[in-house]
Amino acid sequence: MSKFWNDKIKEIEPYVPGEQPKDKKYIKLNTNENPYPPSAKVIEKIKSMNLEDLKLYPDPDVTELGKVIAEYFSNKINNKITYKQVFIGNGSDEILAFIFMTFFNAGDKVYYPDITYSFYPVYADLFNVKEIKIPLNDNFEIEIEKYFGLDGHIIITNPNAPTSIALKLEEIEKIAEKNPSQLVVVDEAYVDFGAESAVKLVNKYDNVLVVQTFSKSRSFAGMRLGYAIGSENTIEGLNRLKFSFNSYTIDRISIEAGIESFKDDEYFEKTNAKIIQTREKTSEELKKLGFKVLNSSANFIFISHNKIFAGDLYKQLKENGVLVRYFAKDRIDNYLRVTIGTDEEIGIFIEKLEDLLGNNVN
Amino acid sequence: MSKFWNDKIKEIEPYVPGEQPKDKKYIKLNTNENPYPPSAKVIEKIKSMNLEDLKLYPDPDVTELGKVIAEYFSNKINNKITYKQVFIGNGSDEILAFIFMTFFNAGDKVYYPDITYSFYPVYADLFNVKEIKIPLNDNFEIEIEKYFGLDGHIIITNPNAPTSIALKLEEIEKIAEKNPSQLVVVDEAYVDFGAESAVKLVNKYDNVLVVQTFSKSRSFAGMRLGYAIGSENTIEGLNRLKFSFNSYTIDRISIEAGIESFKDDEYFEKTNAKIIQTREKTSEELKKLGFKVLNSSANFIFISHNKIFAGDLYKQLKENGVLVRYFAKDRIDNYLRVTIGTDEEIGIFIEKLEDLLGNNVN
Repeated sequence: MSKFWNDKIKEIEPYVPGEQPKDKKYIKLNTNENPYPPSAKVIEKIKSMNLEDLKLYPDPDVTELGKVIAEYFSNKINNKITYKQVFIGNGSDEILAFIFMTFFNAGDKVYYPDITYSFYPVYADLFNVKEIKIPLNDNFEIEIEKYFGLDGHIIITNPNAPTSIALKLEEIEKIAEKNPSQLVVVDEAYVDFGAESAVKLVNKYDNVLVVQTFSKSRSFAGMRLGYAIGSENTIEGLNRLKFSFNSYTIDRISIEAGIESFKDDEYFEKTNAKIIQTREKTSEELKKLGFKVLNSSANFIFISHNKIFAGDLYKQLKENGVLVRYFAKDRIDNYLRVTIGTDEEIGIFIEKLEDLLGNNVN
Repeated sequence: MSKFWNDKIKEIEPYVPGEQPKDKKYIKLNTNENPYPPSAKVIEKIKSMNLEDLKLYPDPDVTELGKVIAEYFSNKINNKITYKQVFIGNGSDEILAFIFMTFFNAGDKVYYPDITYSFYPVYADLFNVKEIKIPLNDNFEIEIEKYFGLDGHIIITNPNAPTSIALKLEEIEKIAEKNPSQLVVVDEAYVDFGAESAVKLVNKYDNVLVVQTFSKSRSFAGMRLGYAIGSENTIEGLNRLKFSFNSYTIDRISIEAGIESFKDDEYFEKTNAKIIQTREKTSEELKKLGFKVLNSSANFIFISHNKIFAGDLYKQLKENGVLVRYFAKDRIDNYLRVTIGTDEEIGIFIEKLEDLLGNNVN
């Protein structure tokens, strides 16, 4: 089935997104979606937009949304970020692909943890970049000394996925400081759930490029919006790539919805706080059931039980209507990644666990 | 300004989209947008959607929209097209980039006319594919014999841009037939305004891959949707690339709006017919003013006047509030590309032309 495919498409193993089964209604704790809807102001904005204007191209530079994001972070970190330091993408995965295409040459090295976002190896393969995986320690933590003075680009997911564990800002800073000529990409998909953003570093270190997404903390998985913040130099590079690839990546509705999301900071803070609260409560309850629960700064937890194999538990939960994510991979094949849902969803998840553990342990 | 850029980003010349000036309100006849809004049913659908669901990822396979498009074309060509023959992209430019990444190896040759969509040379450069430009004849027509038995991939824009001239379906078929081992990409961004689609050929020729867009005939420039139709083999290749690049390229609103657009065929046919009617009338009037007007099958016309240089006319029109597109390029630097607007917009355009020609000729 590969008559016209090029050499790369013949051999590559594409990324596999979390399953979205349609056979029945599940409690979906498998793709790190936000259990709460986008801000009511966002929804109101979409419904009240002049949608006749969809006949016209959007602003290819996405300037208005870029300015809102720049202003938000300027206030947050008390240091000026300009819109020329903000790049908007069609989801943060698109931005990660663009980063490989903009900053990495074929044959370059890129360093990341052995356990991290499983899309990076696919990008490395697609763009012929040599990946070097640095093992997490036995507690699944990044040991930052292993990232000092490297001879290649660096990608750090913070908090890391699927481990949920965060580095401190000063640790990220140390990595940036020790690699002044290497691009340090900080993928902060989950940062709003308990870690500190490296946006604070971008005016001091021109090698730090932060990637964030609307998909998790802004309840926009269905909308496709992400952004990168860095030096004007790195952002200009991303724009050169974008305008050589697809000038109009962001549609008019996404732009308006994105602006409105950043304006409703109160809702954003409130839903994030709620998810953190549910996460902490869930972690405590799971520990009582005998689970090992890694110390999470994300909207998911990474758990393991010594009485039941994670792969089996995944299957039994699915049969019982609860979807979680299982990775059949070295080192983590006895762990489950569980998205933090509403209190009600988590209540059912824990009930099911109690039943299953009762059945399995006795 | 290129500290972290890779070799390609340092040298590439990005595509320059048509200008979208914000200094004042123009009559915009420069980016081939549709002068009519999307179908009222599309707008109603967006306003009545459950937007709380934006918290959830969209279907990464975009199956539902793919099925609607497959059914539409099955009926139209009276031959079964399945959803596995349909690929959906974030605008047709994204699909064109994906095509380069899926089917072309670095060092391959790709053939296209010397005068055609100016994004192709950017893709060729970005992906290290060797472009070979085949000159249009003196009437700006593609001579199909020049495309027989080639030793590289082929891209044909039909109708061609910015010339507006279409090939007949049997001419496209001849090119496909004479290059059975080469992929023949038919970029049909403007096909609904008067040419015949090569979708009719995809079940007979597995090397034909048709690209269409919602941006023009479906009034969706602001929404970002395109699709490709080909053999299951080529579409599977595009999906392998997509899932190695960005799994979720299409947001939930675009999917629903796209489905609704295909359902309202009556509005689609009506607005296209109206634009064709305005185009024919405009062409006649311009000829009376002494313009050479190429025979258009698109939603734009390509015009030239022997008494006033196109570059000057472009500037004077802009000063007078009318934007058209001017390409300062070999062979076409005395032509203007003018999008067909509403009758009212075209009326003002022609009035301004009459004034300017009076001033310039006398």
